[in-house]
Amino acid sequence: MHVTLPAGFRAGGIRCGLKKRPELLDLGLLLADKSLPAWALFTRNRLNGAHIPVCRDHLDRSGGLVRAVLVNAGNANCATGPEGVEDARVLCAALAERIGCPTEQVLMISTGVIGARLDAERVERALDPLLEEVGPDGAEAFARAIMTTDTYPKAHSRETTAGLVTGFAKGSGMIHPDMATMLAFLLGDRVPEGGLDAVRRIADRSFHRTTVDGDTSPNDTLLLWGRTRGVHPQQPRSDEGGSEGGAAGTVPPGDVERAYTEVAQTLARDIARDGEGATRLITIRVRDAADEQEATRIGRAVAISPLVKTAIAGRDPNWGRIVSAASSCGIPVEPAHMRLAIGDVDVYADGRPLVANEAAAHEHLVSREEVFITLHLGRGRAEADVWTCDLTADYVDINANYRS
Amino acid sequence: MHVTLPAGFRAGGIRCGLKKRPELLDLGLLLADKSLPAWALFTRNRLNGAHIPVCRDHLDRSGGLVRAVLVNAGNANCATGPEGVEDARVLCAALAERIGCPTEQVLMISTGVIGARLDAERVERALDPLLEEVGPDGAEAFARAIMTTDTYPKAHSRETTAGLVTGFAKGSGMIHPDMATMLAFLLGDRVPEGGLDAVRRIADRSFHRTTVDGDTSPNDTLLLWGRTRGVHPQQPRSDEGGSEGGAAGTVPPGDVERAYTEVAQTLARDIARDGEGATRLITIRVRDAADEQEATRIGRAVAISPLVKTAIAGRDPNWGRIVSAASSCGIPVEPAHMRLAIGDVDVYADGRPLVANEAAAHEHLVSREEVFITLHLGRGRAEADVWTCDLTADYVDINANYRS
Repeated sequence: MHVTLPAGFRAGGIRCGLKKRPELLDLGLLLADKSLPAWALFTRNRLNGAHIPVCRDHLDRSGGLVRAVLVNAGNANCATGPEGVEDARVLCAALAERIGCPTEQVLMISTGVIGARLDAERVERALDPLLEEVGPDGAEAFARAIMTTDTYPKAHSRETTAGLVTGFAKGSGMIHPDMATMLAFLLGDRVPEGGLDAVRRIADRSFHRTTVDGDTSPNDTLLLWGRTRGVHPQQPRSDEGGSEGGAAGTVPPGDVERAYTEVAQTLARDIARDGEGATRLITIRVRDAADEQEATRIGRAVAISPLVKTAIAGRDPNWGRIVSAASSCGIPVEPAHMRLAIGDVDVYADGRPLVANEAAAHEHLVSREEVFITLHLGRGRAEADVWTCDLTADYVDINANYRS
Repeated sequence: MHVTLPAGFRAGGIRCGLKKRPELLDLGLLLADKSLPAWALFTRNRLNGAHIPVCRDHLDRSGGLVRAVLVNAGNANCATGPEGVEDARVLCAALAERIGCPTEQVLMISTGVIGARLDAERVERALDPLLEEVGPDGAEAFARAIMTTDTYPKAHSRETTAGLVTGFAKGSGMIHPDMATMLAFLLGDRVPEGGLDAVRRIADRSFHRTTVDGDTSPNDTLLLWGRTRGVHPQQPRSDEGGSEGGAAGTVPPGDVERAYTEVAQTLARDIARDGEGATRLITIRVRDAADEQEATRIGRAVAISPLVKTAIAGRDPNWGRIVSAASSCGIPVEPAHMRLAIGDVDVYADGRPLVANEAAAHEHLVSREEVFITLHLGRGRAEADVWTCDLTADYVDINANYRS
């Protein structure tokens, strides 16, 4: 993993003992040298992890300025009653005291098992060792500390004309984001213009286009956080960080948002690739749609179908299930006008299968770890890519035995 | 199986060779002594099996009168182009000629693999032997002939104050009815008042409350068919069948509809119980909802959740996943007001788990083949039951290897 943090950010991760297996990290920290603006999207699930009301309150009271983000895995601090909310507040205050900032400039975010009380004392005892670990090279440790059933850490940096953008995310189950996937963090040299609206657009084109199992987590959180150089002219320059990149203050706002979107898309694909039990990353490319929203909706309908996902697990180019799923999501598509390719070969057109091409499609599914399903709707010029993974017996095993 | 046909109906099933395994029946027939009124609901999937436009056309041209329903399994005659539609028409005509009725009084309905041309000649050669098999005792053979991945035939008779109602259905995958499940037939001594509206109400309370895998089949068809005694006074008595039941012509219309609903619910439960790879029938009882539609929607959100279904496969009373799924379907429920029981014991209330009861809930999941999840919403007095099954590695195996 080659991940660099934007200047002015430090990161780290340690083990404090929330996860069962003794070799696993489970407490991470992102720390800015000074408070910087941040925006967060939270789950639309009506069940909310305790961190969500606390984060909302802190962002509200701080005017959106954040100094530190503490993240634990192994315990979602969800369905833990008022005590769970209090635990999150106490830990924010304990960290704020140690780094010398107002409590509301600290956020705490949790992921893991639902319904078990968080051992807040254990977390608090780990704060000093964690602060000792934090540094400019701590990105990988942070990415590892926020993993749950992920098989590899998910972090990505991109140097762009808009400066450096670095993102972190975790999967791997209960992934069907209805605003952002279960924990993602995007840090940057300069934040995009438009605040929360920009964050929503970025999520709509990245995390909202990935699904593992159709279940929306109650702890879903996406945080975008960074310096404001050049894109918020109304803000004082003194609020900007110290390091100088190659980018001037005149970067087009579209470039900044695009940089975050690309990093977010890379993470969204990583989440699908590492879906629980997955052996294939599936990219569903919807083309010739009436609009982008329709393209996304149809892509998600295909991506969520257990029959499509099990067929890919069996390396079966089962075009019938794909066309059927795309045709039953409430959009008035005309199946006879659709054209469907698996890999480079068409397997369905004009309302009928192209049986002679199935062998080549099967070979694509067998030989590629990332497989492509391209569905032309014949309704317009819009398009969207959606990401998911195959559904294997391992997914069932992982989730049948998750708590035991 | 103890299934009786209403008087004036005959049924049968034979093997004509559409299924691979040589011991399996695959062609069934329901035959009325004379034409009787019928109503059909078809899939809302935009991809339609070839039988659907033909059925619509025939019901339209016959004024809703049906003499015979021919059903094949092993081939869905779907995505087979205009030739597939022509195949269905030709077979209806061939059967009509043999039984001496107008072509439009014959319906043909198909289920099985999508996208392979139906061998219409093979089916036509089987019509004479099939007509020889048809009789008053042929219900079981018919039920067997329409099976696909079902592990047992699904048929149910109920003698009621409204006369005899007999139903047939088939599962077991691509089951997420958006009007009726993949093939169901309800026959009766007297049809309910209200025609298609009554059929919709019956489906809303039965097949629309069952799901196996969230995939809506392109061939979904529900047919309600029977004599009109006493409930359609505007129709001439000469249109009524011959046999006399115990019921007089004054049966309250509600009783008639209720009888069909109960038979349909029994079949809907059977479909969930026999879901592909299932080891548990799961009944989700939503209580104290604001209205019945809301109760159904929340029940379906729980029933479709792979995480809930894999937890049950693992005998894990994972209340967190259930509350989370119920809280993320767009209804403004308040998770802190919910109460959740698994079997007879509460496992979640007041926003927190009742950890001490988990052992009893686990025992319920281990020891019962039908398990009960009861979710009180605290929003009103409406309720609905929804049925599904657990999600096992066998489901994945069945569907990864369906076409190979």
